[in-house]
Amino acid sequence: MELKETVIGTETIYDGKILHLRVDTVRLPNGHESKREIVAHKGAVCVVPVQADGTILMVRQFRLAAGQALLEIPAGTLEPGEDPDACAARELEEETGYRATTLRPLFRIYPTPGYSTERIHAYLATGLTPGRANLDAGENVELVAVPTAEAERMALAGEIQDAKTLCALLVALRSL
Amino acid sequence: MELKETVIGTETIYDGKILHLRVDTVRLPNGHESKREIVAHKGAVCVVPVQADGTILMVRQFRLAAGQALLEIPAGTLEPGEDPDACAARELEEETGYRATTLRPLFRIYPTPGYSTERIHAYLATGLTPGRANLDAGENVELVAVPTAEAERMALAGEIQDAKTLCALLVALRSL
Repeated sequence: MELKETVIGTETIYDGKILHLRVDTVRLPNGHESKREIVAHKGAVCVVPVQADGTILMVRQFRLAAGQALLEIPAGTLEPGEDPDACAARELEEETGYRATTLRPLFRIYPTPGYSTERIHAYLATGLTPGRANLDAGENVELVAVPTAEAERMALAGEIQDAKTLCALLVALRSL
Repeated sequence: MELKETVIGTETIYDGKILHLRVDTVRLPNGHESKREIVAHKGAVCVVPVQADGTILMVRQFRLAAGQALLEIPAGTLEPGEDPDACAARELEEETGYRATTLRPLFRIYPTPGYSTERIHAYLATGLTPGRANLDAGENVELVAVPTAEAERMALAGEIQDAKTLCALLVALRSL
């Protein structure tokens, strides 16, 4: 079966700081037309930083869209033209104050492929040494060191509510 | 540390079919103001349907935002006022043609808490019996039965690119 949709028109709705919204008109495999509301996003990285003592550095951050603070792994948005490996190193140091000797790619995921072009590159960071934290203005982040076993328990018990964090913890813990 | 942000203003940018975009002005814990671009979304469900023969029913679907067809578990958006349990049963039958004797909640995640209010309720479905498929207009979905061991291999090898699918497979496979 041919699944591909072909874009035959596009309308820009909003050009914001982080989000850009457009409505595409597509031709379906059966010849009919449909509309697709698409958020254009630059992409992002996330990092599972595992310390020598077996704890994972995580961040607690208020997420307005979720209406609560969530426990997540360090993450951030790609700068224009930025290499994901470099972005992972930068975001890790900015959010946690640590640098990694080794940053190993884990996977790449689309968090919401139904409506956002965002793709997240996930990494496992080991060999951590102190650098310096440098949070973006308006970023309120609390650093938490979570033991590996506790992180796994939380992931399997439904206590991790951020999708990228849940994916990355479960994959990383299987590869340590 | 107080992490909460307080909304002091909101501007509606777009009211679409699936997406609604607004820009909120928030007061940060330090007293400063900042803007938050927020996609308001009704929420969704996803289901890991495990057959008696140990295969998982998955769907291959073209995702315009990802520019490719992705292998995912059955999923769909909540109707206004719809109970997530009922939505999971409905979407499972619509997308796969199967009904489940047992639908067990696995977890609830925010796929993109940085900018979308979408929350996905994930379920494990067992005791599958034939019902009838009934895809939405414009939905082109190919049904695939994936052996449990192959699904786990793909998840750990980075071959699952959809975040909800990666989370749900890894959690479900640990609870079977």
